[in-house]
Amino acid sequence: MRRPWQRLVRFIAKNPSTGSSNQYYYGDAILPDGVSDIGRATHAHILSSVSHLFTNDYNISERVEEIGTFLAPLNPRCVPNIRCLGLNYARHAREAGMSLPARPIVFYKPRGALHGRPFDPIRIPLVAQETPGLDYECELVAVIGRMCKDVTEADALEYVAGYCVGNDISHRELQLQRGGGQWAMGKGFDGWAPIGPGIVSSEIIGDPQNLNIMTKVNGEVMQESNTRDMVFSVAKTIEYLSQGTTLFPGDLIFTGTPEGVGMGRKPPLWLKDGDVVEVNLEGVGSCVNQIKFERNDAPGPLEQERKKPNAEFEQ
Amino acid sequence: MRRPWQRLVRFIAKNPSTGSSNQYYYGDAILPDGVSDIGRATHAHILSSVSHLFTNDYNISERVEEIGTFLAPLNPRCVPNIRCLGLNYARHAREAGMSLPARPIVFYKPRGALHGRPFDPIRIPLVAQETPGLDYECELVAVIGRMCKDVTEADALEYVAGYCVGNDISHRELQLQRGGGQWAMGKGFDGWAPIGPGIVSSEIIGDPQNLNIMTKVNGEVMQESNTRDMVFSVAKTIEYLSQGTTLFPGDLIFTGTPEGVGMGRKPPLWLKDGDVVEVNLEGVGSCVNQIKFERNDAPGPLEQERKKPNAEFEQ
Repeated sequence: MRRPWQRLVRFIAKNPSTGSSNQYYYGDAILPDGVSDIGRATHAHILSSVSHLFTNDYNISERVEEIGTFLAPLNPRCVPNIRCLGLNYARHAREAGMSLPARPIVFYKPRGALHGRPFDPIRIPLVAQETPGLDYECELVAVIGRMCKDVTEADALEYVAGYCVGNDISHRELQLQRGGGQWAMGKGFDGWAPIGPGIVSSEIIGDPQNLNIMTKVNGEVMQESNTRDMVFSVAKTIEYLSQGTTLFPGDLIFTGTPEGVGMGRKPPLWLKDGDVVEVNLEGVGSCVNQIKFERNDAPGPLEQERKKPNAEFEQ
Repeated sequence: MRRPWQRLVRFIAKNPSTGSSNQYYYGDAILPDGVSDIGRATHAHILSSVSHLFTNDYNISERVEEIGTFLAPLNPRCVPNIRCLGLNYARHAREAGMSLPARPIVFYKPRGALHGRPFDPIRIPLVAQETPGLDYECELVAVIGRMCKDVTEADALEYVAGYCVGNDISHRELQLQRGGGQWAMGKGFDGWAPIGPGIVSSEIIGDPQNLNIMTKVNGEVMQESNTRDMVFSVAKTIEYLSQGTTLFPGDLIFTGTPEGVGMGRKPPLWLKDGDVVEVNLEGVGSCVNQIKFERNDAPGPLEQERKKPNAEFEQ
């Protein structure tokens, strides 16, 4: 079948028809009728080569494998940059007590922040446990599919391969108070950028500015909005970001979060050890991650576990 | 010769002994007696494999090639992240009218900001020509050699492969006024992070906190300091940055700039089209780049040239 993928997933196969049982596959998810959440897919067509993940005439093989464990839809090595926007939803800017920004507010996450798996726990390092402030941010994430620079708003969406949902995990005290004004450190710890559960192609999504987006914490809705409330649309954002700046295939753009973050609630709601956070984007599905506070009171293996680098990066 | 490299360079060979004339090589620079500026090397031993650039028992071949054109010492694909520090020299913080930061101030540059060549022009896009504010920042750049996380200050330097000099090109109006407080956009345009001319190994450098560092603009000294004026040493910085965060081989850390930037002068000195900026670090050498304002008044090929992505990224 020579056609582009529609819902890109990466996974460990349950009972792979060939090869070892621990292999990683890129696939095109097969959704049951009436289901749009990629995380509910049980099988996928295997992509026959991954060297041109974003070319349109991608080769989807007939071979189908059963999905065992979902991985982030992109290997972190395939993600050159993670750009993020701040204060990009009108009502969120208001809850933060800020005026609407005149231009997109841009910061970066390191590539190690990419979370390996959309349904695995998010690890909270000791430094982010010293003070309250751990927060969630559901976001539409645009995935760049073709290299571009100085693109216009009118052309911008042609360079987007697809969309997924992301959680821009943030520690408000570290982000806003301890960073000397720069947000990167309080948002960039290992695994603090879960994305997934798959990437839905631009063709399937159509208009990215009319999608419901929400967050649940322990099953309770905390954020509920629509991407039409964005201050700068995906297209406008790409025009801005690409000024004098090459965007590369695999670059991720976190496009900001709507109102309802923990910081904006009265009283503030900070994530605790064991909480389960779900971020959901219409037409894409959910990332569901438990919050897991790391501990250092046990020397030996646990201490080693804590210091273990972001392993998914190496696959 | 089974020994680690001492001065890592990447270059196009002048008259390569084998292969085509346009090949890129990693090499260990051969310095004439009494010379410490890597940019003055004319020949280099070729590295026999580049798959383990940072392992200590690196295989330096006997083969020597003549250096034709210097490239950035690392292919941008080998640089997972570019972390930068702000206000990390005591006298620079003072000239900026800021108090000494309590913790390192961290921001990121995108990987496309890595400049392809240490002696080629820096392109200034149209958006950075609208207002004055173009500035230089000479910096010691530490190159991570081994994956690490949660390292202590005492162990930190063991994870550094070597050092080079970098220029954290910045547009103050875009960095400080138009970015909504976040510095990334005003510092992250294509090629705005020249590094080079090569990477000197940690073994050769020894103590990174006792190196003269300076900037010349059109031959005139503008910054002149020593890395001992850093607020947070390289070791302390790595301890801080690696908290809950994996540092990867090839990660660059720009460690901040001393006093004497254009913004701190009275009146301010902004870089103009055609200016030549040299940043120099003792024991490493200089990056020398002319400032080249892009133009869009010529349709056709020139406009295409302006929109051309950062080509060195693709090598």
